[in-house]
Amino acid sequence: MPGETAFDIDELRRSLGLVVVTDPEVIEGYRRDQSQLTPAGVPLAVVRARSISDVQQTMRWAYERRVPVVTRGAGSGLAGGANAIDGGIVLSLAGLNRIVHIDPSARLATVEAGVINGDLVRAAGEFGLWYPPDPGSREFSTIGGNVATNAGGSCCVKYGVTADHVARIKAILPDGRMIHTGARTRKNVAGLNLGQLLVGSEGTLAVVVEVTVRLRQAPSEVATVVASFETVHQAVESVLAMSTVAEPCVLELMDRTTVTAVESMTRMGLDTDAAALLLVQCDGADSVAQAERCAAMCRRTALDVWSTVDAGEGEAMMVARRSAFTALEQLGGVLLDDVAVPVHQLPGMLRSIEVIAERHRVRIGTFGHAGDGNMHPTVIFDPTDPDEVVRARAAFDEIIDRAIALGGTITGEHGVGVLKRAHLTQMIGGTELDLAERIRGVFDPRGILNPGRG
Amino acid sequence: MPGETAFDIDELRRSLGLVVVTDPEVIEGYRRDQSQLTPAGVPLAVVRARSISDVQQTMRWAYERRVPVVTRGAGSGLAGGANAIDGGIVLSLAGLNRIVHIDPSARLATVEAGVINGDLVRAAGEFGLWYPPDPGSREFSTIGGNVATNAGGSCCVKYGVTADHVARIKAILPDGRMIHTGARTRKNVAGLNLGQLLVGSEGTLAVVVEVTVRLRQAPSEVATVVASFETVHQAVESVLAMSTVAEPCVLELMDRTTVTAVESMTRMGLDTDAAALLLVQCDGADSVAQAERCAAMCRRTALDVWSTVDAGEGEAMMVARRSAFTALEQLGGVLLDDVAVPVHQLPGMLRSIEVIAERHRVRIGTFGHAGDGNMHPTVIFDPTDPDEVVRARAAFDEIIDRAIALGGTITGEHGVGVLKRAHLTQMIGGTELDLAERIRGVFDPRGILNPGRG
Repeated sequence: MPGETAFDIDELRRSLGLVVVTDPEVIEGYRRDQSQLTPAGVPLAVVRARSISDVQQTMRWAYERRVPVVTRGAGSGLAGGANAIDGGIVLSLAGLNRIVHIDPSARLATVEAGVINGDLVRAAGEFGLWYPPDPGSREFSTIGGNVATNAGGSCCVKYGVTADHVARIKAILPDGRMIHTGARTRKNVAGLNLGQLLVGSEGTLAVVVEVTVRLRQAPSEVATVVASFETVHQAVESVLAMSTVAEPCVLELMDRTTVTAVESMTRMGLDTDAAALLLVQCDGADSVAQAERCAAMCRRTALDVWSTVDAGEGEAMMVARRSAFTALEQLGGVLLDDVAVPVHQLPGMLRSIEVIAERHRVRIGTFGHAGDGNMHPTVIFDPTDPDEVVRARAAFDEIIDRAIALGGTITGEHGVGVLKRAHLTQMIGGTELDLAERIRGVFDPRGILNPGRG
Repeated sequence: MPGETAFDIDELRRSLGLVVVTDPEVIEGYRRDQSQLTPAGVPLAVVRARSISDVQQTMRWAYERRVPVVTRGAGSGLAGGANAIDGGIVLSLAGLNRIVHIDPSARLATVEAGVINGDLVRAAGEFGLWYPPDPGSREFSTIGGNVATNAGGSCCVKYGVTADHVARIKAILPDGRMIHTGARTRKNVAGLNLGQLLVGSEGTLAVVVEVTVRLRQAPSEVATVVASFETVHQAVESVLAMSTVAEPCVLELMDRTTVTAVESMTRMGLDTDAAALLLVQCDGADSVAQAERCAAMCRRTALDVWSTVDAGEGEAMMVARRSAFTALEQLGGVLLDDVAVPVHQLPGMLRSIEVIAERHRVRIGTFGHAGDGNMHPTVIFDPTDPDEVVRARAAFDEIIDRAIALGGTITGEHGVGVLKRAHLTQMIGGTELDLAERIRGVFDPRGILNPGRG
């Protein structure tokens, strides 16, 4: 009954005030994350929480009325996991953006969920410390969102993903109760690991409001190697070879389509003839020696190898890599995939992507984290051509099928969201999915937290 | 009814044969793990499983009859988590000891749960690869047991604990169904992370029968630094200082009591006058440079600093450190603790241990993984003196209280077992414990897997 609902929302507004927004124009901006071709509903209201108490009050209100709640950070998700649900609440934590405490002795930072990853990095930097996980969205995505999707990034090949850096989580259960997980110590085996269960749970178990993350000593020096290859196969062979002689902190690949798109946007003189370009960085006290060994491995088959110990030049190459998705977006609508396969299966994966592109008559630009086999094949299509949209989606789905066949995963770092819900059953068995659903039931017996996602 | 039970066991024996053992003398050897002062029951039978099918049949039998099952690897646990339960089954996986597959390209090893950690290390070594987590029990504990307790070790300060190396788990649910968790890829965010929930669950959720672990390139060179200090405080200051100039792969501490005990056993010339001894190792291409920086940090306050790049000499020091517990055992009954605190809280923790020892008139030898704040204060007592046993237990409990007060954990790497069950509520809130219990109910609705433990 709409009347009743409106009354209820007024009730929530009376207790929370202006953080409860029902203005349709404002709401419009909170309906979707950055994914494409994912359904998004029209929420009843957006709650722009300013405090943990706002979150608790919102959850109590929603729990009593069984109103679905979609938690949202920056809305930079790529799988529709933060898209609104019809008649539900979008609970934005962007305003929960306090860096609560940085403890340089313990190398821990405690931040509210809405803190931007890059802001945490800068705050830690003031103590000579560093928060490694570096999703492409680092400058706008929130730590809460990073935790929800177990976000990765380029340096994860050496330093691990978000999960590897989460020490403690403070979260609000659907009924408004607060829970604490984990410990401040590096090692802890007291009780079931609820914290690691929350990481990657895509807002379906509890609302993560505060996270204590592990920091590292900031790496001192970085050396960069860029190598271009005539075949993708040679590039992947070099990736495997480099992993045996060094421990790169960045090991990225861009295919010809991606390099060409980046070059037309940046005009930085990238080799657009090569089938693949590798961008490698090594850090630490022996970064130069490591980079030299990497360069030597590349030289065995590369068309060209270029290296630098200049931090600025290295960063320019990283900017080029980070602009890959934006560059591909210039070419049309884009469906960004996020498959991962064991690294030595990358040649097969990349070959399959070419075959799939041809079969469905779409262009696919592929780039990503070659060092851990996590690729972002990006299907480019004309969104005004319904037939091409269908073909794009078919290509996207086939890429996922192929990743599973090669012993890989349907999502390495973006999450399942709504985009890949249908693919979950291909990868995860019925018994395991049933266990997961029942675990969700333990946290969220009324099924109000991001239902149908993750 | 005992008659009925005997009949039932015969039924299980008919389907499984000689792996079902009811001989009281044999059973006696399966009643306890290596913990002291923990209760242990008399089981109905021991099943020495030889195959996953044995495990499934045992679980189906037990599930139908609601018979408790305690899973056991090598029985090297230190918290009573593998102690038998009266009238239950002890399910030994020691015979599930096949190294199923080592995939050098993917740097993964798949092993059955009963494989000894050290055997996995040697098998990986044949491919130039390495399995880092190195509990003191490395030469006799099983990977299944390591997973059950999320075992740590000395090199975890650089390379992480068991959880950080588990890619996939194959496990048997209480009703006999098999589940698979995780992925072969480094990154994976498809579905809830059931695998990390199993790690450290101490046999309460499912029977882990096969584990796929991540391997690393074996480190090439190791440099060793040994430093002795007049005060424990100076030693910890050096630990913190070294962490800012190097990334040691071993950062161990032994107090005077421990060093003296090791020295009387080994006669290797350790400095028994010092209040604390640090054992530091650095590995990798710049191991020597790192070790030199560590030595320089120690020299600021140390009584003596000694270093070597000779692998044999370094290993001799590691042997000394690994013999710490055995050496302390020569002094009497021992209650081995496993607290962890943030590293900079170690001085307070170590000071408190001295005060507690005095107050309860027991000797306590403390050693452990200083680099991640994980200490093993070992209360030495006369087991024939009932009053001293009470005092020893009181000291043990106070150490745990103190660790919690310093922001630490009741167990860093040994697990809760039965030994620390009472302390769990000091560290974990009622809501969180209730969630954990209900998650256990999802996996094990009849509560037959290691009830009352973990």
